[in-house]
Amino acid sequence: MDLKINPIDHDLMYDALERHRELAKPFGALGMLEQLSAQVAGICGSLYPRVEGGKAVVVFAADNGVVDEGVTPIGQQITSLQACNMAEGRAGISILCQHVDAKLFVVDVGMAYDSLAMRILNRRIRKGTDNIALGPAMSREECYQAMEVGREMADTCAAQGMVLLGGGEMGVGNTTTSSAILTALLGVSAKEIAGYGAGVSEDGYRKKVLAIERAVETNRCNPDDPIDVLHKLGGFDIAALVGYYIRAAQLRCVVVIDGFIAIAAAMLACRIAPALKEYLVLSHRSVEPGYDLAAKEMGLSPLLDMHMRLGEGTGCPLVFQLIEAAVRVLRDMATFEEISIDSAQLIDSWQKFRRQ
Amino acid sequence: MDLKINPIDHDLMYDALERHRELAKPFGALGMLEQLSAQVAGICGSLYPRVEGGKAVVVFAADNGVVDEGVTPIGQQITSLQACNMAEGRAGISILCQHVDAKLFVVDVGMAYDSLAMRILNRRIRKGTDNIALGPAMSREECYQAMEVGREMADTCAAQGMVLLGGGEMGVGNTTTSSAILTALLGVSAKEIAGYGAGVSEDGYRKKVLAIERAVETNRCNPDDPIDVLHKLGGFDIAALVGYYIRAAQLRCVVVIDGFIAIAAAMLACRIAPALKEYLVLSHRSVEPGYDLAAKEMGLSPLLDMHMRLGEGTGCPLVFQLIEAAVRVLRDMATFEEISIDSAQLIDSWQKFRRQ
Repeated sequence: MDLKINPIDHDLMYDALERHRELAKPFGALGMLEQLSAQVAGICGSLYPRVEGGKAVVVFAADNGVVDEGVTPIGQQITSLQACNMAEGRAGISILCQHVDAKLFVVDVGMAYDSLAMRILNRRIRKGTDNIALGPAMSREECYQAMEVGREMADTCAAQGMVLLGGGEMGVGNTTTSSAILTALLGVSAKEIAGYGAGVSEDGYRKKVLAIERAVETNRCNPDDPIDVLHKLGGFDIAALVGYYIRAAQLRCVVVIDGFIAIAAAMLACRIAPALKEYLVLSHRSVEPGYDLAAKEMGLSPLLDMHMRLGEGTGCPLVFQLIEAAVRVLRDMATFEEISIDSAQLIDSWQKFRRQ
Repeated sequence: MDLKINPIDHDLMYDALERHRELAKPFGALGMLEQLSAQVAGICGSLYPRVEGGKAVVVFAADNGVVDEGVTPIGQQITSLQACNMAEGRAGISILCQHVDAKLFVVDVGMAYDSLAMRILNRRIRKGTDNIALGPAMSREECYQAMEVGREMADTCAAQGMVLLGGGEMGVGNTTTSSAILTALLGVSAKEIAGYGAGVSEDGYRKKVLAIERAVETNRCNPDDPIDVLHKLGGFDIAALVGYYIRAAQLRCVVVIDGFIAIAAAMLACRIAPALKEYLVLSHRSVEPGYDLAAKEMGLSPLLDMHMRLGEGTGCPLVFQLIEAAVRVLRDMATFEEISIDSAQLIDSWQKFRRQ
């Protein structure tokens, strides 16, 4: 599998910032919108990329054997049920994608239960991973298979002209698997990483931390081998996201990261292909404790902090709008030069109508 | 002038939060989007208000006599020039309004120089205020006139069915006037409030702080009389914003606050009509130091923190999109009940296809 990513075009990024100096406003006054527009220019290889209308969120749904440890109060049926709800256009991510006119793909990459929803793409590796507290989640080969599903989806999106690509996930127990990945990659304790996920009790939280500790201990991952960490501690959803992010960057798309599970996948993907980092836009700050550690390690900051913790990719559509706004500002605002040309008449009038 | 504002509908706000409990997601998982949708329901008097397409930013442009103190490196011509640029659709606020399909009004409420732009509404009180370091900016009567211009604009917007109303300003020197207002209202030192505005030098900053101190000392405002503070330390732009915000709330619109100058106007307006606070949405955190103090005193938090400092109302369009998303989530997401009804077949299928 080709996992190499080329750097973004730094000359174009520089050109974009130069143009921001020429636009009729104090330089830097549009803050992160300016940085964002420059990043997108560098990624897309154009000062004025056509980002409007070309955006998608791909949700990878899969189940996790670690639910056997009692890390969550809800059953695995919810994964299929919610994936169905997404595909039928009624989940949070569906509504937000409709609102911003982004395409939504829902991909079964390893759900434990079947769904009759026609709009779920069936790319199931198998019915959920094994329990990471007892051994590897999946084989190394299965991990590559899941990554390949992600790659395929990035190809599908890019073939439809999409430029802004967000990733989401649905999988009961996946705040546990992503916490395990971050714990292993960052070399910190499980308690510094794990939070209360979608709503676990105190007792459930203790079980979750214990499961993460056992998973990290049992699997003895090599932190210098990201695929080793991924196949032992991850889920099919996370592995698919890793493949999706990397391929999206290879295709010079803007890679939009949702919340906690997404940042674990992104951090892992960056260990595989460090140049990926330049393609990433962190959408929103997750309330899970490990999020900030991961973002800091990557040297990135999220655009939004709205106390969201739904997952599904819900941060992505909100940020698509900001990215489009940033690109449009860079393209359409008048330069100082244009103003003075257009306003020759005005300057004349100022000389006639002096201040009282 | 009628300055009374009725409270928002707290029952509907409660109903909206109850509905969020029924939607197929953990309660609170959409964070500030949930609070926002409930606030909008309470303001508009409907669980599912029609906010889409009905939004505007009104920019009030005016000049400030305090520029005589050397508080800014740019001349008053820039006010007219930039107002023209806005009206002609090429300024930052114009592009962002076009992007989100919001209407933009530019109103001359007291520019020092004329502009030939046809699309600037002429409501000029006079050609700029007097120097606040030497005495009152305007008479009490002029202050009411400027507020009346703001009221008129809110009426105009509401008559066109607009529900999301943002305010902007253009006026060289208006970070000085707004800093003076906040200094007087909060009873703190000028240095705790004033920042570097659109880009002042160290020398300019010292002059700015001195001008604010002199203005507060010379004018001896009564902090318990907001109109006294407003007419002595404000500008026509700020007074118009105050009238605009209050009238927008009377018309049960969502009042979106931009950055530093806007929050000074909003805080003053809340002193006049305390119920206004429930109608306010703070769009983004300004980098000027006084912003946080003002937000804290009002008990409100901005939605975005993107290091923006352009003014013009540029935070408003970015937040219109988030408000629309919030309203749409509340309206369109499936409830737990709807899912289980629709998924009877699915439940059946789960029983056939058990987990391996």
